[in-house]
Parts: sequence; C-alpha cells; structure tokens
Amino acid sequence: MTDRPKTPTLDKVHLPSDLRRLSDEDLHRVAQELRQETISAVSQTGGHLGAGLGVVELTVAIHSVFETPRDKLIWDVSHQCYPHKILTGRRERIRTLRQKDGLSGFTKRSESPYDPFGAAHSSTSMSAGLGFAVARDLGGDPGDVVCVIGDGAMSAGMAYEAMNNAGALGKRLIIILNDNEMSIAPPVGAMSSYLSRLYAGAPFQELKAVAKGAVSFLPPPLQEGARRAKDMLKHLAVGGTLFEELGISYLGPIDGHDLDQLLAILRTVRSRADGPILIHAITRKGKGYAPAEEAADRGHGVSKFDMVTGEQSKAPSNAPSYTKVFAQTLSDIAERDDKIVAVTAAMPDGTGLKSFMERFSSRCFDVGIAEQHAVTFAAGLAAGGMRPFAAIYSTFLQRGYDQIVHDVAIQRLPVRFAIDRAGLVGADGATHAGSYDIAYLANLPGFVVMAAADEAELARMVATAAVHDEGPIAFRFPRGEGVGLEMPKVPEPLEIGKGRIVREGRRVALLSYGTRLAEAEVACERLAERRIEPTLADARFVKPLDRELILNLARNHEALITLEEGAVGGFGSHVAQLLAEEGVFDRGLAYRSMVLPDVFIDQASPRDMYEVAGLNAEHIEAKVLETLGVGVMSKRA
Amino acid sequence: MTDRPKTPTLDKVHLPSDLRRLSDEDLHRVAQELRQETISAVSQTGGHLGAGLGVVELTVAIHSVFETPRDKLIWDVSHQCYPHKILTGRRERIRTLRQKDGLSGFTKRSESPYDPFGAAHSSTSMSAGLGFAVARDLGGDPGDVVCVIGDGAMSAGMAYEAMNNAGALGKRLIIILNDNEMSIAPPVGAMSSYLSRLYAGAPFQELKAVAKGAVSFLPPPLQEGARRAKDMLKHLAVGGTLFEELGISYLGPIDGHDLDQLLAILRTVRSRADGPILIHAITRKGKGYAPAEEAADRGHGVSKFDMVTGEQSKAPSNAPSYTKVFAQTLSDIAERDDKIVAVTAAMPDGTGLKSFMERFSSRCFDVGIAEQHAVTFAAGLAAGGMRPFAAIYSTFLQRGYDQIVHDVAIQRLPVRFAIDRAGLVGADGATHAGSYDIAYLANLPGFVVMAAADEAELARMVATAAVHDEGPIAFRFPRGEGVGLEMPKVPEPLEIGKGRIVREGRRVALLSYGTRLAEAEVACERLAERRIEPTLADARFVKPLDRELILNLARNHEALITLEEGAVGGFGSHVAQLLAEEGVFDRGLAYRSMVLPDVFIDQASPRDMYEVAGLNAEHIEAKVLETLGVGVMSKRA
Repeated sequence: MTDRPKTPTLDKVHLPSDLRRLSDEDLHRVAQELRQETISAVSQTGGHLGAGLGVVELTVAIHSVFETPRDKLIWDVSHQCYPHKILTGRRERIRTLRQKDGLSGFTKRSESPYDPFGAAHSSTSMSAGLGFAVARDLGGDPGDVVCVIGDGAMSAGMAYEAMNNAGALGKRLIIILNDNEMSIAPPVGAMSSYLSRLYAGAPFQELKAVAKGAVSFLPPPLQEGARRAKDMLKHLAVGGTLFEELGISYLGPIDGHDLDQLLAILRTVRSRADGPILIHAITRKGKGYAPAEEAADRGHGVSKFDMVTGEQSKAPSNAPSYTKVFAQTLSDIAERDDKIVAVTAAMPDGTGLKSFMERFSSRCFDVGIAEQHAVTFAAGLAAGGMRPFAAIYSTFLQRGYDQIVHDVAIQRLPVRFAIDRAGLVGADGATHAGSYDIAYLANLPGFVVMAAADEAELARMVATAAVHDEGPIAFRFPRGEGVGLEMPKVPEPLEIGKGRIVREGRRVALLSYGTRLAEAEVACERLAERRIEPTLADARFVKPLDRELILNLARNHEALITLEEGAVGGFGSHVAQLLAEEGVFDRGLAYRSMVLPDVFIDQASPRDMYEVAGLNAEHIEAKVLETLGVGVMSKRA
Repeated sequence: MTDRPKTPTLDKVHLPSDLRRLSDEDLHRVAQELRQETISAVSQTGGHLGAGLGVVELTVAIHSVFETPRDKLIWDVSHQCYPHKILTGRRERIRTLRQKDGLSGFTKRSESPYDPFGAAHSSTSMSAGLGFAVARDLGGDPGDVVCVIGDGAMSAGMAYEAMNNAGALGKRLIIILNDNEMSIAPPVGAMSSYLSRLYAGAPFQELKAVAKGAVSFLPPPLQEGARRAKDMLKHLAVGGTLFEELGISYLGPIDGHDLDQLLAILRTVRSRADGPILIHAITRKGKGYAPAEEAADRGHGVSKFDMVTGEQSKAPSNAPSYTKVFAQTLSDIAERDDKIVAVTAAMPDGTGLKSFMERFSSRCFDVGIAEQHAVTFAAGLAAGGMRPFAAIYSTFLQRGYDQIVHDVAIQRLPVRFAIDRAGLVGADGATHAGSYDIAYLANLPGFVVMAAADEAELARMVATAAVHDEGPIAFRFPRGEGVGLEMPKVPEPLEIGKGRIVREGRRVALLSYGTRLAEAEVACERLAERRIEPTLADARFVKPLDRELILNLARNHEALITLEEGAVGGFGSHVAQLLAEEGVFDRGLAYRSMVLPDVFIDQASPRDMYEVAGLNAEHIEAKVLETLGVGVMSKRA
C-alpha cells in the first residue's frame, strides 16, 4: 500500500518485551509511529478511531513499564485497544479489524495472552482486575493488574461496586482513569462534573514537575516499613477526596499524552504502590489526528477514510434507518402528547434520541452508562404519571434485567422499551448481539412484547406503545436500514396481540417474528419455483400471542415453522408451549423453530452472521424442503 | 388477644392526616405505642422485625411532617415498612403480614396509595424517587419525594447511579440515609467504612443543638433568591464531602431515634430545601426491643415469638437445609482444593457461606449488595486461576445478568453459580420468586445448567461444579428443607448432560427438572391406583440436554410431560426445541410442559404458591389423565 506510514522504530517492536529494550527517546518515536499506524489501519478498516488515538502514549508507557502479559492489562470497554493490538503481536492482522475472520475490535481472551480479560460493554475492568489481584494473592496467576477505564465508564454503578470492594480489600491494584471528557457522547452526571473540577484547578505544568520528582518524594520501599507507600503517593494528589474516601489512593491529574511523565509515574507506582491506586490521566480523544480531534464525536466510530483529508467513505453509521424511524416517530408523537419523555443510558446518538433531545430538551434524560437506574428511573416516571420511553440496545438492556422484573413488570408500570440493535449486529460481534431479549422479556407477566418486521411496522409499534397505559410494553428492531417502504404519515396503533397474514399459501406456514420476514419472502419466491407456496405470517407479538392466528396456521398446514432473530426460549418456545397445551402435537404437526444457534458468533457483516446462524433465505428454503421431506437437506443440519 | 399492648394514642390514628393534628408530645406517645404494636404484630406473624423497630421514629416524623400520600414516601427494600403500614390504614390487617391473602411484607402499589413505589430488592428507591421528582416538575403527580434508604443498600451500584443522576439534575429530592450499620449482615465495603467515619467524630449531643437551631440558620425562602437553601443546609453538615461532591447536600449525622430532632430537621428541610439533599440518620436495628437488640442479626427475620421473653417458636429459617447442604459440601471440597473460593453479595447467612467464611476466611468474599460486580469479580477470579463459586439467589442473580452473558459466558470462564431460592419462595412473595433463571441461563452458549431434585443430588452437583473447569456451570435449588435422604459421605460428580430414570413405566413419561420430582412421585403413586404407571425421569441438566434419554422417552411413550419450577422459556422449551428439530412432533406426541403460570403469585406458603401455580402432585396427576384422555380435566384448565 502506498499510503502506509514509515515506521522504522515500531518495526522493531514485535512484542512488548521489545519495548523494554528501547530508550525513552525511542519510546517517543514508537508512540509517534504507533499513532500513524493506527490511523493508517483504521483508514482501511473503519472502526473505533478516536479512543485508540487518545491512549497511544498510555499504551506505550504501560507495556514499557509493566511486564505484560505476566502483568495483566485490562482495557475497559476496549474499543481503545487497537494500538495495544499493534504492540502485542497482532500488527500483521491489524488491517482485518472487525472483519469476518479478522481481529476483533475489542480485546478477546481467545485472541491473545495479552488480552487477559475481554470486554466490549462498559465498566467491567475494575471488577475483573480485582478478581485477578485477589487470585494472585491466593496463589493464582502472578503479576500486577492494571485497569484502564474511561471517565464515561465511571458513571456505571458497576464501577462504584468494584471501587467499594477494592477499597475495602486493600489489594494492590492499579487503576488508570483515562479522562477524555468523552464517552461516545459527552459524559453526564455528577461524577463527571466532579472529575472536571479535579483538574480544572490544577494545570499540568505545575504537576509535571511534581510528577517528575515523584521518586524523590517517596521513601525507599523498605526504609519505613510501617508507613505505606500509599500514604506517600497521596501527597502527589491535588484532589481526589472522593476516591480517597473509598480507600483508593488518588494520584493526579496528569497529562496522559506526556510520555515522560507517564513513564516516571508508572515506574514509581510499580515499584512502590501497595493497595489500590487510581492514576487520573487527562487525554484527548482523537489526539494527533486533526479530522478526529475536530469531529463532534472525536472520531469515535468511523468508516474507511482518506488519511490525508479524513474524509470518510460514507457517513458514520451511528444513525441507521430503523433508529431514525424510531426517533422521528417518537418526536412526532411527543409533539402532540406532553406526557411522552425519553430516557437513554449514555447513547443519545446511537438510539437516535439526540434529535428528540433537541426538540424536547426538558423531556429527555441521558442518565449515563447506568441501565439499572435508567429502568427504575423510567418506572418512577411512569408511576408519576408520565409516558416514558426507555431506549436501550438489546445487549445493554441485560444490565437492567432485574429492574425490568422487579420495578416494572411486577408493578405493571407502563414503561415503553425501545430495543434497538436486536439480533446480530455485525462488526461489533458477539458481545453486542441482541440475542436474548425475546426470551428474557416474553415470560414476564403483563408485558406486551413486539418485534418490527420493517420500518413501517416499527412506526406503528412506537405509536402502539405511546398509547398503551395498561402496563409495560417493548418493541425490538435491528441495527441498520429498513426495507425501503413508504412510511405512513400518522402511524396507526396496532391491535394488541394481533398478527397478520402476509401471503396465503398451503402445506407449510412460515410464522416470522421480526425482520426475518424479508428473508422469508425471498424464500417463498424461490419455493414458488418448485411449486411450493408457503403461507407467510408476521406474528408482530410474542406476548400476547395471536392464538387464533397460530392455531389456524397449525390446523390448516402440514408444517409450521417459526422464525426469529433470537435464542431459544423466545418466540418459538412460546408458540410451542401454546401448541402443546392445545394438544396440537398429539395429532402430529411438523413443527420447527428457527432460532439463533447455540454459539457466540464472531463479527462479520450482519448478513454473514445470519449465514453462520442459518437464518437467511436459503436456510429458510432448505428448512421448508427438509420439513416437508422434499429435496435437499438443510445446510444447517 | 390478651397480650395486645394498650395504645390509646395510636388508636386515634387511622391515617397519617390524624398524626398532623397531634402535638409533638402526642407524637412521642404514638411512636412508643407504634413500637409496641409492631412487636406485638410480628410476635404473631413472624417476619422482619429489627428493620421496622429501627425506623419507628422516622416513620412517625415523616408522616407527621410530610403530606403523604400526596408527598411520596419510598421505602428502600421496604422490609422496614410494618410501622408505616400500621399508620397508613392497614393496622386492622397487620396481623396477616406475609400470609396468604394477607398484607405483603413489603410496600406494594396495589395495596395502598401510601405505597407509591413497591420494593423488596435493594437500592431502587432513589432511582424511583428521582423519576417521581422529574415527573412532578414536568406536570405529573405533584408532591414531595422522600426516599428512605439503608446504609447497606448504599453498597449497590444502582444507588450510585441514581445519586450521579440526581446530583446532576438538581431536582428537589429528599433522601434519608437510615444508617444502622446493618443490612441483613453487617455491611461491607469502603462506603460503609466511610459512613462510619462520618459519625464517629461527631457525637449526637453537639449536633442536636445545631439541628434544633437549624431554622434560625436558614434564610427565609425568598430573602436571598440567588443563594440556594441547599448552600445553607450544608453548614449543618459535619462531613459528607462524598455526597457533596456528587451534588447532593449532606445533613447530619443525626440521631434517628430522637423524634424532636427529626421533626425539627424534617420541617426545616421541607420548608427550605431545593435540589437533592441527604439526611444522615443513625438508627439502631431492633431498637427498643431487647431480644432483637441483643440478637446477632438484630432481629432481622424472626418466627412467631413470645413478646415477653423474645423466644421464637422456632429458629429463624435463614439456613434451611438445601442451603446447608450446599455450604457444607462446598466447605468439605474446599478443604481438599485450595483453588475453591466463594463470593456472596451481602448474604453470608442466607447463602450459608457464613460457615465457609469461618473456615476459609481468606477465600470468601462478601462484596456488598453488588451482584454486577460479584459476577465479574468471580469471572476475574476464574481467569486468574481460581475455582470461584458465586452463591446468589435466583432473583438477585437477575442483577448480574449482563455480566453473566458478557464476562462469563462469552469468555467461557469457569464460574460456578450456586443459585439458591430457585422457584417459589413463600412469605417473601412474588418479588423474591426465582422464576426466570432456567430461561435466562439455559440459552447461553457453553453453559452447563443443572437443577437438584433433592439434597443428595445437590451435593453431587456441588461436586460436579467443583471439578468442571471447561466453562461456566450453574446449579439451582429451592428454599427450604430437603426430602430427608441420607447424604453421601463424598459426593460423586455427575456425568455432564446425563439424566436418570427414577421409575420405569409405560404410556406416559414424566420428565422432571428440579424438586418437583417429589411431587411427581406422589402423582405416580396415585396414578398407580388407576393402573396408570408413568415412567418418571430426573433430567438433572437443561444444558446440555440428555438427548438420548429424552428421545427414548418420546419414542417409547404416547405422552411426554416436562415439569419445572420456572417460567416458560426454560427446560420445557429446550426439550420442545429438541423434539421439534428431531421431527418427533411430525409423527404425533402428546407433549406437555408444566411451568410456572404467567402471573406473579402473591405470598403464601411455598406449597400454597405451587397450588396456585398448578404444580403440585394433584395437578401432575390431572395433567397425566387429561393428556391421556382419561377421567377428569386438569384443575388448571
């Protein structure tokens, strides 16, 4: 490739141990070249750019000072791990990032011993790190533990739970707070303001001197046995009382792009720290690449781009069509209904609520990366007479599951759940798949649970949820673009629990829940060529089930096949339960349920992932043929 | 009843509005009588005693000062709500607490307008309260919001998420931190130490004077418009920086049993506060009843007792037999295997781990009410080479669901989940039912998921989990006592994915997962009288399924009926998926799946709850007859 940067020093680094043989001067060169290599790689693959650029110096410093992989380096969320991957033996494959059979966009235990704990969801690093630290002290794997966590991730309760436990246990644990004042969106909440105040009063210039002199501040390790190094390090801190009150030494704020300072401080901490210590490093997301630094999202997620101009091959896909349809419809309804409010957990862009927020600033709440709170806060809003929409991705809603059961379902509070990224999501891979929401919601008494087959249906489901005051209601929809239907001007609410027949046929009925409907239609077209004409229905609801529709399909066909973008336990299971109870199986019915298979599917395009899952048109076609005992066997079998 | 206390002043209080007509002197009498009435009621019903006794003065003060139910009073966890129920129109029914068709042991929206938000799980009150506060300010239900939350509940991330959001939003919200240095067990973690330090240095005596003079400290509401009352109230605080840093005014610590002080402070706060404010009240769990004050658990959960002696009709049932079998077996194995460690989320007694903790103090971790952290911490321990058992009730494990998926399952880390209180639990009612774990675990790739049919099987499952290093494994068991089997000295690990035939029969096969096996055996005995002899099998595993066993049962019987103590989506659904895929239904099979019904079942004895659920022996018998087309119809139908 002509546009690959020249990286003579980086070329000598195959593993972190190579870094440890370099001079500090060379480490500066490595950092510079690593930044260029990261930009170059992401310009070809797309992906998370800004976060990685913000931790280039941190990455070099940690791997130089600590003895990875014996020492465990745990990246929180880990979308900032591209420079880390380049330094840890994966440079050759870095241009396969987020692609089928390529490197994951996140850390992954199965990918490298330098990834001791994978991540993708936020705020898990300190809990995992504490586990490693405790295991080490009990005779498990040796080595230091270094967690790098962003300021946005600090808004999650899980981070607090970990600090609460770490502060009490007092084990040696090194936490680097990578404070760039950005998660995906600007971070929110009181903790975020607190962190800003911490460094607002303390310019780096002054601190730098202190930090460089840090070693002289500290006693030799054994000189003052009783006095803990922890107490010494404390004196470097300008603020940080909150962490100190939780039993965690605070050191900072420091300039996270000043490699000399980072090296000095990490060396000091490594040789002297005991107990948990938090190093507060200020960084800039997108650092060192103007197009990223200048972007509103600091180059958070990008498509392939031109390295010189920064121009992306297409706009970042953080507002796909289903998302827009949801947000637009909700805004339109909110215009007429001032009880409508919306809640997001740190994803105003991803959920599309940013546009809602702009129109109704007092009625939209970004609560931080805090799904537990988001759900119960929404329940409180509903109990207080509002009509709240909690817009949370399927995979992240797992964080609020108990609150859904305990605060929403048991109390029958009319919280509306807008579940984006349902089903397989593509480049983000298994950690972001929305595979379980059908199963974990549909067995909750009193819930209404829908899935949109297309964008027009989604609009109707938003309208349905808006007027449903009798209890909780949820609707799911996938990542990506709709099928291109014309949208209704004012979407009509659906009748609760009623599906629809899309195509009348005979012998076999396909009953789809969600957007596999389009694939099923393709399958029907192909089957027609073999003179097999399935009936095709869109269930719309897994709860309540359209009993009449389903029992009629069962009665009038030899075979009934359900389709869904979810794991077993969901739509097909509820249908099977109904058929069993009604004695339909007694008389014989070729029933099949096509669900996500029992594996975590690695990143690829959504279409490729559904290929692996066996849920594309050709699989549906094969399943019909197999079930009817005609022609080829299913590829899946 | 001869032992009912004389309560002449309390007798005049039918609703909180009656309190507001009484003098402060009379309120003192009400508090005294309310304490006696609470003790008297619980002596007859059993239940949560200590928590209620600790908030008698708080309860009287809040209802006197605030205009409930217009003002919303939200009790966190709410097992401390008995005095509240007595004052809010439920005194007549207070001796039905926790019984079938009686009052719930928790607050419940459907029970009273004075319960604006029900609870039972911990740490939800501030999230819900913030929802009410925001709704109010947007034109929803009017009134103040008062949350009462314990110090133990402060260890949960959800509490932090709510404070983080409340501090940022700045809405008027009154939080009373009821600090009794006890949750169920003594609280743990750095926050708990922090709270202790806050009042260690500040004796009540001095504060009392300050508090009484509080009104004079404050400006009239409108006098200094720009200066917020919040800033004024601040001056009353001795410490509380941590809360202040999060944007929440701190006031305290104060003596939570000093009614005069409480009234003065609440009146001041009510008239002047804006923004979120936290009042730190120190109370004593079990206050005013010597047998409770002197008990190790401060009378947390008691059986019926003699009011004079405090002697309980039987020991508190917080260490039932299944729990003991788990803990004992684990301790025995840990004696021989020093990689075994255990994690509890603030339930050392309830999970039985207290005895493990006593034997292996360095290998047992109480992380606080922090299930999210507990699960990922356990994952870290596993990644670091240990063999962690995370012992968490089914209903509370819902709090760690995303961590189970993201940190444990995707990484295939061998965390062992000991899931106590699976199925219906009795007096604690719907909020504590363990109904969903089968469904939410069994569809996770790589998981092994077991249910114990009896206590000997449980011991074997503990042994199975201990040696299973290939990935995550879970076993569930119910509240209460086993069936009385002799226990194996050294329990033998099970073969993964193998069930067992318990009774060979014909025509119909009963396939049980978990402790419904005993009921199924009774059903078989009864059916034998009608010359129907079912085959009875214990599946042991929902994942991996014993395909051979299940397909053989299907092949050799007219009917197959699955049994489980869980909601649809679990065992029966996985069996149905297998049968469908194998084409068993094509040929006809009378398949039924007996699961928990689609309702939240109110408190009663577990047996009575299973009666409502239709899962006792007579229902199984009826289901067999109905399925075979013999005799009576099922009572459930």
